[in-house]
Amino acid sequence: MMYELYYWPTIQGRGEFVRLTLEEAAADYVDVARGPGGTRAMMRLMKDAETPPFAPPFLRADGRLIGQTAAILLYLGAQHGLAPKDPAGGLWTHQIQLTIADFVNEAHDTHHPVGSSLYYEDQKEESLRRAEDFRQNRIPKFLGWFEDILDRNPSGSDHLVGADLTYADLSLFQIVEGLAYAFPKTAAAALKKTPLVTALHAAIAERPRIKAYLASDRRIPFNQEGIFRRYPELDD
Amino acid sequence: MMYELYYWPTIQGRGEFVRLTLEEAAADYVDVARGPGGTRAMMRLMKDAETPPFAPPFLRADGRLIGQTAAILLYLGAQHGLAPKDPAGGLWTHQIQLTIADFVNEAHDTHHPVGSSLYYEDQKEESLRRAEDFRQNRIPKFLGWFEDILDRNPSGSDHLVGADLTYADLSLFQIVEGLAYAFPKTAAAALKKTPLVTALHAAIAERPRIKAYLASDRRIPFNQEGIFRRYPELDD
Repeated sequence: MMYELYYWPTIQGRGEFVRLTLEEAAADYVDVARGPGGTRAMMRLMKDAETPPFAPPFLRADGRLIGQTAAILLYLGAQHGLAPKDPAGGLWTHQIQLTIADFVNEAHDTHHPVGSSLYYEDQKEESLRRAEDFRQNRIPKFLGWFEDILDRNPSGSDHLVGADLTYADLSLFQIVEGLAYAFPKTAAAALKKTPLVTALHAAIAERPRIKAYLASDRRIPFNQEGIFRRYPELDD
Repeated sequence: MMYELYYWPTIQGRGEFVRLTLEEAAADYVDVARGPGGTRAMMRLMKDAETPPFAPPFLRADGRLIGQTAAILLYLGAQHGLAPKDPAGGLWTHQIQLTIADFVNEAHDTHHPVGSSLYYEDQKEESLRRAEDFRQNRIPKFLGWFEDILDRNPSGSDHLVGADLTYADLSLFQIVEGLAYAFPKTAAAALKKTPLVTALHAAIAERPRIKAYLASDRRIPFNQEGIFRRYPELDD
Protein backbone atom coordinates (compact mmCIF):
# COMPACT_ATOMS: atom_id res chain seq x y z
CA MET A 1 0.00 0.00 0.00
CA MET A 2 1.18 3.51 -0.87
CA TYR A 3 0.72 6.02 1.94
CA GLU A 4 0.20 9.71 1.36
CA LEU A 5 1.64 11.87 4.13
CA TYR A 6 0.36 15.44 4.31
CA TYR A 7 2.46 17.93 6.25
CA TRP A 8 4.04 21.35 5.87
CA PRO A 9 6.79 20.91 3.29
CA THR A 10 9.52 23.09 4.82
CA ILE A 11 9.74 21.86 8.43
CA GLN A 12 10.27 18.74 10.48
CA GLY A 13 7.58 19.71 12.99
CA ARG A 14 5.06 17.11 14.09
CA GLY A 15 5.27 15.44 10.70
CA GLU A 16 8.78 14.25 11.51
CA PHE A 17 7.49 11.71 14.02
CA VAL A 18 5.48 10.15 11.21
CA ARG A 19 8.33 10.37 8.71
CA LEU A 20 10.71 8.55 11.06
CA THR A 21 8.26 5.70 11.53
CA LEU A 22 7.55 5.43 7.80
CA GLU A 23 11.29 5.39 7.09
CA GLU A 24 12.09 2.75 9.73
CA ALA A 25 9.22 0.64 8.39
CA ALA A 26 10.59 1.04 4.85
CA ALA A 27 7.03 1.95 3.95
CA ASP A 28 6.06 3.14 0.52
CA TYR A 29 4.99 6.77 0.95
CA VAL A 30 4.75 10.15 -0.73
CA ASP A 31 5.33 13.35 1.22
CA VAL A 32 2.58 15.02 -0.77
CA ALA A 33 3.02 18.68 0.12
CA ARG A 34 6.66 18.57 -0.94
CA GLY A 35 5.55 17.96 -4.50
CA PRO A 36 3.86 20.35 -6.96
CA GLY A 37 0.40 21.44 -5.85
CA GLY A 38 0.74 19.39 -2.69
CA THR A 39 0.13 22.11 -0.16
CA ARG A 40 -3.01 23.17 -1.99
CA ALA A 41 -4.24 19.56 -2.00
CA MET A 42 -3.54 19.38 1.74
CA MET A 43 -5.52 22.53 2.47
CA ARG A 44 -8.41 21.31 0.36
CA LEU A 45 -8.65 18.03 2.27
CA MET A 46 -8.65 19.86 5.61
CA LYS A 47 -11.49 22.01 4.38
CA ASP A 48 -13.66 19.56 2.47
CA ALA A 49 -13.10 16.00 3.67
CA GLU A 50 -15.97 14.15 5.31
CA THR A 51 -13.60 13.47 8.22
CA PRO A 52 -11.48 16.64 8.08
CA PRO A 53 -8.19 16.66 9.96
CA PHE A 54 -7.98 19.66 12.29
CA ALA A 55 -4.34 20.26 11.32
CA PRO A 56 -1.43 18.52 9.60
CA PRO A 57 0.09 15.99 9.78
CA PHE A 58 -2.40 13.54 8.42
CA LEU A 59 -2.09 10.33 6.47
CA ARG A 60 -4.14 8.87 3.67
CA ALA A 61 -4.11 5.15 4.13
CA ASP A 62 -6.44 2.51 2.84
CA GLY A 63 -8.84 5.11 1.47
CA ARG A 64 -9.27 7.12 4.65
CA LEU A 65 -7.67 10.09 6.35
CA ILE A 66 -6.02 9.76 9.75
CA GLY A 67 -5.07 12.92 11.62
CA GLN A 68 -3.31 13.62 14.93
CA THR A 69 0.30 12.47 15.09
CA ALA A 70 -0.25 9.97 17.90
CA ALA A 71 -3.24 8.42 16.13
CA ILE A 72 -1.23 8.05 12.92
CA LEU A 73 1.53 6.29 14.84
CA LEU A 74 -0.97 4.05 16.62
CA TYR A 75 -2.15 2.96 13.19
CA LEU A 76 1.30 2.62 11.59
CA GLY A 77 2.76 0.85 14.61
CA ALA A 78 0.18 -1.90 14.33
CA GLN A 79 0.59 -2.17 10.55
CA HIS A 80 4.38 -2.44 10.59
CA GLY A 81 5.29 -4.25 13.79
CA LEU A 82 6.52 -1.10 15.49
CA ALA A 83 4.37 -1.63 18.59
CA PRO A 84 3.60 -4.64 20.77
CA LYS A 85 0.79 -6.82 19.47
CA ASP A 86 -0.77 -7.37 22.90
CA PRO A 87 -3.39 -4.72 23.74
CA ALA A 88 -1.82 -3.70 27.06
CA GLY A 89 1.61 -3.17 25.50
CA GLY A 90 0.08 -1.36 22.57
CA LEU A 91 -1.82 1.04 24.80
CA TRP A 92 1.22 1.68 27.00
CA THR A 93 3.25 2.57 23.90
CA HIS A 94 0.48 4.94 22.83
CA GLN A 95 0.35 6.47 26.31
CA ILE A 96 4.07 7.26 26.07
CA GLN A 97 3.51 8.79 22.63
CA LEU A 98 0.71 11.00 23.98
CA THR A 99 3.06 12.23 26.70
CA ILE A 100 5.65 12.97 24.03
CA ALA A 101 2.92 14.94 22.20
CA ASP A 102 2.35 17.01 25.34
CA PHE A 103 6.06 17.71 25.55
CA VAL A 104 6.12 18.77 21.89
CA ASN A 105 3.25 21.20 22.54
CA GLU A 106 5.17 22.69 25.44
CA ALA A 107 8.36 22.98 23.38
CA HIS A 108 6.40 24.84 20.70
CA ASP A 109 4.90 27.20 23.23
CA THR A 110 8.32 28.34 24.45
CA HIS A 111 8.43 30.55 21.37
CA HIS A 112 4.66 31.00 20.99
CA PRO A 113 3.28 31.40 24.52
CA VAL A 114 0.66 33.95 23.46
CA GLY A 115 -0.57 32.41 20.23
CA SER A 116 0.38 30.84 16.93
CA SER A 117 -1.19 33.73 15.05
CA LEU A 118 1.56 36.13 16.19
CA TYR A 119 5.25 36.26 15.31
CA TYR A 120 7.85 35.27 17.88
CA GLU A 121 9.12 38.85 17.88
CA ASP A 122 5.69 40.00 19.07
CA GLN A 123 5.70 37.66 22.05
CA LYS A 124 9.36 37.64 22.96
CA GLU A 125 8.96 38.90 26.51
CA GLU A 126 6.44 36.18 27.27
CA SER A 127 8.71 33.64 25.57
CA LEU A 128 11.60 34.47 27.86
CA ARG A 129 9.50 33.68 30.92
CA ARG A 130 7.92 30.55 29.48
CA ALA A 131 11.26 29.19 28.26
CA GLU A 132 12.75 29.65 31.72
CA ASP A 133 10.02 27.48 33.22
CA PHE A 134 10.46 24.96 30.41
CA ARG A 135 14.22 24.71 30.98
CA GLN A 136 14.10 24.58 34.75
CA ASN A 137 11.02 22.44 35.36
CA ARG A 138 9.64 20.77 32.28
CA ILE A 139 12.72 19.42 30.47
CA PRO A 140 14.03 17.69 33.63
CA LYS A 141 10.59 16.33 34.48
CA PHE A 142 9.92 14.84 31.03
CA LEU A 143 13.44 13.49 30.46
CA GLY A 144 13.43 12.03 33.97
CA TRP A 145 10.16 10.26 33.21
CA PHE A 146 11.56 8.72 30.02
CA GLU A 147 14.66 7.66 31.97
CA ASP A 148 12.50 5.98 34.63
CA ILE A 149 10.56 4.08 31.98
CA LEU A 150 13.73 2.83 30.32
CA ASP A 151 15.14 1.89 33.71
CA ARG A 152 12.04 -0.04 34.74
CA ASN A 153 11.41 -1.86 31.46
CA PRO A 154 11.52 -5.51 32.53
CA SER A 155 12.74 -6.49 29.05
CA GLY A 156 15.78 -4.24 29.33
CA SER A 157 16.68 -0.59 29.02
CA ASP A 158 17.39 -0.51 25.29
CA HIS A 159 13.76 0.30 24.51
CA LEU A 160 10.87 2.12 26.14
CA VAL A 161 8.50 -0.82 25.74
CA GLY A 162 9.38 -4.50 25.56
CA ALA A 163 12.47 -5.92 23.89
CA ASP A 164 11.91 -4.47 20.42
CA LEU A 165 11.87 -1.11 18.72
CA THR A 166 8.59 0.84 18.80
CA TYR A 167 7.49 4.13 17.29
CA ALA A 168 7.82 5.65 20.76
CA ASP A 169 11.58 5.00 20.68
CA LEU A 170 11.78 6.80 17.34
CA SER A 171 9.79 9.70 18.76
CA LEU A 172 12.03 9.97 21.81
CA PHE A 173 15.00 10.09 19.42
CA GLN A 174 13.36 13.04 17.69
CA ILE A 175 12.67 14.82 21.01
CA VAL A 176 16.37 14.60 21.86
CA GLU A 177 17.29 15.84 18.38
CA GLY A 178 14.96 18.79 18.79
CA LEU A 179 16.12 19.73 22.27
CA ALA A 180 19.76 19.52 21.21
CA TYR A 181 19.01 21.89 18.35
CA ALA A 182 16.79 24.40 20.15
CA PHE A 183 18.31 24.37 23.63
CA PRO A 184 21.88 23.12 23.14
CA LYS A 185 23.19 24.24 26.52
CA THR A 186 20.20 23.10 28.53
CA ALA A 187 19.93 19.81 26.66
CA ALA A 188 23.60 18.96 27.10
CA ALA A 189 23.34 19.45 30.86
CA ALA A 190 20.02 17.65 31.19
CA LEU A 191 21.02 14.64 29.09
CA LYS A 192 24.02 13.99 31.34
CA LYS A 193 21.51 13.04 34.01
CA THR A 194 19.59 10.67 31.73
CA PRO A 195 22.17 8.23 30.35
CA LEU A 196 19.57 5.71 29.17
CA VAL A 197 17.77 8.35 27.10
CA THR A 198 21.12 9.45 25.69
CA ALA A 199 22.05 5.87 24.79
CA LEU A 200 18.69 5.24 23.13
CA HIS A 201 19.14 8.36 21.01
CA ALA A 202 22.60 7.23 19.91
CA ALA A 203 21.38 3.72 19.07
CA ILE A 204 18.48 4.98 16.96
CA ALA A 205 20.82 7.26 15.01
CA GLU A 206 22.84 4.16 14.03
CA ARG A 207 19.94 2.10 12.75
CA PRO A 208 20.63 1.63 9.04
CA ARG A 209 17.35 2.99 7.69
CA ILE A 210 17.34 5.95 10.08
CA LYS A 211 20.98 6.69 9.31
CA ALA A 212 20.26 6.65 5.59
CA TYR A 213 17.22 8.84 6.07
CA LEU A 214 19.07 11.42 8.17
CA ALA A 215 21.74 11.66 5.47
CA SER A 216 19.18 12.05 2.68
CA ASP A 217 17.48 15.18 1.43
CA ARG A 218 14.19 13.75 2.67
CA ARG A 219 15.31 14.90 6.15
CA ILE A 220 14.56 18.63 6.26
CA PRO A 221 17.13 20.46 8.39
CA PHE A 222 15.96 22.15 11.59
CA ASN A 223 15.12 25.81 10.99
CA GLN A 224 13.35 28.78 12.50
CA GLU A 225 9.89 27.78 11.28
CA GLY A 226 9.36 24.49 13.06
CA ILE A 227 8.50 23.31 16.55
CA PHE A 228 12.12 23.34 17.70
CA ARG A 229 13.83 26.69 16.96
CA ARG A 230 17.14 28.01 18.12
CA TYR A 231 16.70 31.34 19.80
CA PRO A 232 19.83 31.63 21.97
CA GLU A 233 18.08 33.97 24.40
CA LEU A 234 15.64 31.16 25.27
CA ASP A 235 18.49 28.81 26.21
CA ASP A 236 20.13 31.07 28.78
CA MET B 1 -14.85 -5.28 36.95
CA MET B 2 -14.27 -2.47 39.41
CA TYR B 3 -12.29 0.45 37.98
CA GLU B 4 -10.13 2.71 40.08
CA LEU B 5 -9.98 6.27 38.76
CA TYR B 6 -7.12 8.42 40.03
CA TYR B 7 -7.47 12.17 39.69
CA TRP B 8 -7.23 15.34 41.74
CA PRO B 9 -10.14 15.21 44.18
CA THR B 10 -11.25 18.85 44.13
CA ILE B 11 -11.58 19.65 40.43
CA GLN B 12 -13.31 18.45 37.27
CA GLY B 13 -10.18 18.99 35.16
CA ARG B 14 -9.15 16.31 32.71
CA GLY B 15 -10.58 13.64 34.99
CA GLU B 16 -14.08 14.81 34.17
CA PHE B 17 -13.89 13.41 30.65
CA VAL B 18 -13.27 10.00 32.20
CA ARG B 19 -15.93 10.44 34.87
CA LEU B 20 -18.58 11.28 32.26
CA THR B 21 -17.79 8.16 30.27
CA LEU B 22 -17.76 5.94 33.37
CA GLU B 23 -21.11 7.42 34.43
CA GLU B 24 -22.75 7.01 31.02
CA ALA B 25 -21.48 3.42 30.92
CA ALA B 26 -22.90 2.81 34.41
CA ALA B 27 -19.49 1.35 35.17
CA ASP B 28 -18.49 0.25 38.62
CA TYR B 29 -15.74 2.65 39.72
CA VAL B 30 -14.11 4.33 42.69
CA ASP B 31 -12.81 7.89 42.46
CA VAL B 32 -9.86 6.92 44.62
CA ALA B 33 -8.34 10.26 45.53
CA ARG B 34 -11.69 11.49 46.87
CA GLY B 35 -11.45 8.88 49.62
CA PRO B 36 -9.14 8.77 52.66
CA GLY B 37 -5.48 8.41 51.74
CA GLY B 38 -6.39 8.43 48.08
CA THR B 39 -4.22 11.31 46.96
CA ARG B 40 -1.21 9.76 48.67
CA ALA B 41 -1.90 6.45 46.91
CA MET B 42 -2.13 8.32 43.60
CA MET B 43 1.20 10.06 44.12
CA ARG B 44 2.84 6.78 45.08
CA LEU B 45 1.70 5.06 41.89
CA MET B 46 3.00 7.93 39.74
CA LYS B 47 6.35 7.61 41.46
CA ASP B 48 6.80 3.87 41.78
CA ALA B 49 4.72 2.01 39.18
CA GLU B 50 6.51 -0.05 36.56
CA THR B 51 4.48 1.90 33.97
CA PRO B 52 4.17 5.23 35.77
CA PRO B 53 1.56 7.71 34.52
CA PHE B 54 3.15 11.10 33.82
CA ALA B 55 0.17 12.89 35.39
CA PRO B 56 -3.41 12.22 36.51
CA PRO B 57 -5.93 11.14 35.41
CA PHE B 58 -5.13 7.47 35.21
CA LEU B 59 -7.21 4.34 35.54
CA ARG B 60 -6.48 1.02 37.13
CA ALA B 61 -8.27 -1.58 35.04
CA ASP B 62 -7.70 -5.27 34.73
CA GLY B 63 -4.53 -5.09 36.84
CA ARG B 64 -2.79 -2.37 34.84
CA LEU B 65 -2.52 1.39 34.84
CA ILE B 66 -3.69 3.47 31.89
CA GLY B 67 -2.74 7.14 31.77
CA GLN B 68 -3.52 9.99 29.37
CA THR B 69 -7.18 10.97 29.15
CA ALA B 70 -7.57 10.07 25.47
CA ALA B 71 -5.95 6.65 25.98
CA ILE B 72 -8.27 5.92 28.91
CA LEU B 73 -11.27 6.80 26.76
CA LEU B 74 -9.98 4.69 23.88
CA TYR B 75 -9.91 1.77 26.30
CA LEU B 76 -13.27 2.48 27.98
CA GLY B 77 -15.01 3.21 24.70
CA ALA B 78 -14.16 -0.24 23.41
CA GLN B 79 -15.12 -1.93 26.68
CA HIS B 80 -18.51 -0.26 27.00
CA GLY B 81 -19.78 0.24 23.47
CA LEU B 82 -19.09 3.97 23.50
CA ALA B 83 -17.11 3.93 20.26
CA PRO B 84 -17.65 2.25 16.88
CA LYS B 85 -16.43 -1.33 16.72
CA ASP B 86 -14.91 -0.99 13.26
CA PRO B 87 -11.26 0.11 13.35
CA ALA B 88 -11.72 3.12 11.06
CA GLY B 89 -14.61 4.50 13.11
CA GLY B 90 -12.78 3.81 16.34
CA LEU B 91 -9.68 5.68 15.20
CA TRP B 92 -11.73 8.62 13.90
CA THR B 93 -13.45 8.90 17.29
CA HIS B 94 -10.02 8.85 18.95
CA GLN B 95 -8.74 11.50 16.54
CA ILE B 96 -11.60 13.78 17.56
CA GLN B 97 -10.80 13.13 21.21
CA LEU B 98 -7.14 14.03 20.65
CA THR B 99 -8.23 17.31 19.09
CA ILE B 100 -10.44 17.93 22.12
CA ALA B 101 -7.37 17.27 24.27
CA ASP B 102 -5.46 19.94 22.34
CA PHE B 103 -8.30 22.37 22.93
CA VAL B 104 -8.30 21.57 26.64
CA ASN B 105 -4.56 22.29 26.81
CA GLU B 106 -5.14 25.62 25.13
CA ALA B 107 -8.01 26.48 27.48
CA HIS B 108 -5.74 25.73 30.44
CA ASP B 109 -2.98 27.89 29.07
CA THR B 110 -5.23 30.96 28.91
CA HIS B 111 -4.63 31.31 32.65
CA HIS B 112 -1.20 29.66 32.69
CA PRO B 113 0.63 30.85 29.58
CA VAL B 114 3.99 31.02 31.32
CA GLY B 115 3.92 27.83 33.36
CA SER B 116 1.93 25.64 35.72
CA SER B 117 4.47 26.22 38.46
CA LEU B 118 3.39 29.87 38.85
CA TYR B 119 0.15 31.37 40.15
CA TYR B 120 -2.26 33.04 37.76
CA GLU B 121 -1.62 36.34 39.50
CA ASP B 122 2.05 36.05 38.54
CA GLN B 123 1.27 35.63 34.83
CA LYS B 124 -1.79 37.79 34.50
CA GLU B 125 -0.40 40.14 31.86
CA GLU B 126 0.56 37.20 29.66
CA SER B 127 -2.85 35.64 30.31
CA LEU B 128 -4.67 38.69 29.01
CA ARG B 129 -2.87 38.44 25.68
CA ARG B 130 -3.20 34.68 25.37
CA ALA B 131 -6.90 34.74 26.27
CA GLU B 132 -7.54 37.35 23.60
CA ASP B 133 -6.05 35.06 20.96
CA PHE B 134 -8.00 32.13 22.38
CA ARG B 135 -11.29 34.01 22.24
CA GLN B 136 -10.78 35.53 18.82
CA ASN B 137 -9.10 32.69 16.94
CA ARG B 138 -9.10 29.41 18.77
CA ILE B 139 -12.63 29.09 20.15
CA PRO B 140 -14.22 29.82 16.74
CA LYS B 141 -11.81 27.50 14.96
CA PHE B 142 -12.37 24.52 17.27
CA LEU B 143 -16.13 24.97 17.61
CA GLY B 144 -16.39 25.43 13.86
CA TRP B 145 -14.53 22.16 13.34
CA PHE B 146 -16.90 20.28 15.63
CA GLU B 147 -19.86 21.86 13.83
CA ASP B 148 -18.48 20.73 10.45
CA ILE B 149 -18.03 17.18 11.71
CA LEU B 150 -21.58 17.04 13.02
CA ASP B 151 -22.85 18.54 9.78
CA ARG B 152 -20.97 16.02 7.61
CA ASN B 153 -21.73 12.90 9.63
CA PRO B 154 -23.47 10.69 7.06
CA SER B 155 -25.41 8.98 9.87
CA GLY B 156 -26.93 12.28 11.01
CA SER B 157 -25.98 15.34 13.02
CA ASP B 158 -27.01 14.07 16.45
CA HIS B 159 -23.56 12.57 17.04
CA LEU B 160 -19.97 13.26 16.06
CA VAL B 161 -19.41 9.72 14.79
CA GLY B 162 -21.98 7.29 13.44
CA ALA B 163 -25.54 6.98 14.67
CA ASP B 164 -24.79 6.27 18.31
CA LEU B 165 -23.32 8.02 21.30
CA THR B 166 -19.53 7.92 21.71
CA TYR B 167 -17.18 9.17 24.38
CA ALA B 168 -16.29 12.03 22.01
CA ASP B 169 -19.87 13.33 22.26
CA LEU B 170 -19.59 13.29 26.05
CA SER B 171 -16.28 15.13 25.84
CA LEU B 172 -17.71 17.78 23.54
CA PHE B 173 -20.51 18.26 26.06
CA GLN B 174 -17.86 18.91 28.72
CA ILE B 175 -16.00 21.38 26.49
CA VAL B 176 -19.20 23.39 26.10
CA GLU B 177 -19.82 23.22 29.84
CA GLY B 178 -16.31 24.49 30.52
CA LEU B 179 -16.43 27.31 27.98
CA ALA B 180 -19.81 28.46 29.28
CA TYR B 181 -18.37 28.60 32.78
CA ALA B 182 -15.00 30.18 32.02
CA PHE B 183 -15.90 32.46 29.11
CA PRO B 184 -19.65 33.05 29.45
CA LYS B 185 -19.83 36.03 27.11
CA THR B 186 -17.55 34.61 24.44
CA ALA B 187 -19.15 31.17 24.61
CA ALA B 188 -22.69 32.52 24.28
CA ALA B 189 -21.76 34.44 21.15
CA ALA B 190 -19.73 31.61 19.64
CA LEU B 191 -22.32 28.91 20.28
CA LYS B 192 -24.95 30.88 18.39
CA LYS B 193 -22.91 30.12 15.29
CA THR B 194 -22.69 26.39 16.00
CA PRO B 195 -26.28 25.20 16.46
CA LEU B 196 -25.40 21.52 16.05
CA VAL B 197 -22.82 21.71 18.85
CA THR B 198 -25.35 23.54 21.00
CA ALA B 199 -28.00 20.91 20.31
CA LEU B 200 -25.60 18.06 21.09
CA HIS B 201 -24.73 19.67 24.42
CA ALA B 202 -28.40 20.01 25.31
CA ALA B 203 -29.17 16.42 24.33
CA ILE B 204 -26.31 15.00 26.40
CA ALA B 205 -27.46 16.98 29.45
CA GLU B 206 -30.83 15.21 29.19
CA ARG B 207 -29.48 11.69 29.03
CA PRO B 208 -30.79 10.01 32.20
CA ARG B 209 -27.45 8.84 33.60
CA ILE B 210 -25.71 12.11 32.80
CA LYS B 211 -28.59 14.10 34.27
CA ALA B 212 -28.44 12.06 37.47
CA TYR B 213 -24.66 12.43 37.63
CA LEU B 214 -24.76 16.20 37.15
CA ALA B 215 -27.28 16.50 39.98
CA SER B 216 -25.22 14.31 42.32
CA ASP B 217 -22.39 15.26 44.61
CA ARG B 218 -20.11 13.14 42.45
CA ARG B 219 -20.07 16.10 40.03
CA ILE B 220 -17.60 18.59 41.49
CA PRO B 221 -18.66 22.17 40.73
CA PHE B 222 -16.42 24.28 38.50
CA ASN B 223 -14.01 26.37 40.55
CA GLN B 224 -10.81 28.43 40.33
CA GLU B 225 -8.46 25.44 40.54
CA GLY B 226 -9.40 23.50 37.43
CA ILE B 227 -8.81 23.74 33.70
CA PHE B 228 -11.79 26.04 33.14
CA ARG B 229 -11.71 29.05 35.48
CA ARG B 230 -13.81 32.17 35.47
CA TYR B 231 -11.59 35.22 35.41
CA PRO B 232 -13.90 37.93 34.01
CA GLU B 233 -10.94 39.93 32.68
CA LEU B 234 -10.09 37.02 30.34
CA ASP B 235 -13.59 37.05 28.82
CA ASP B 236 -13.59 40.70 27.77
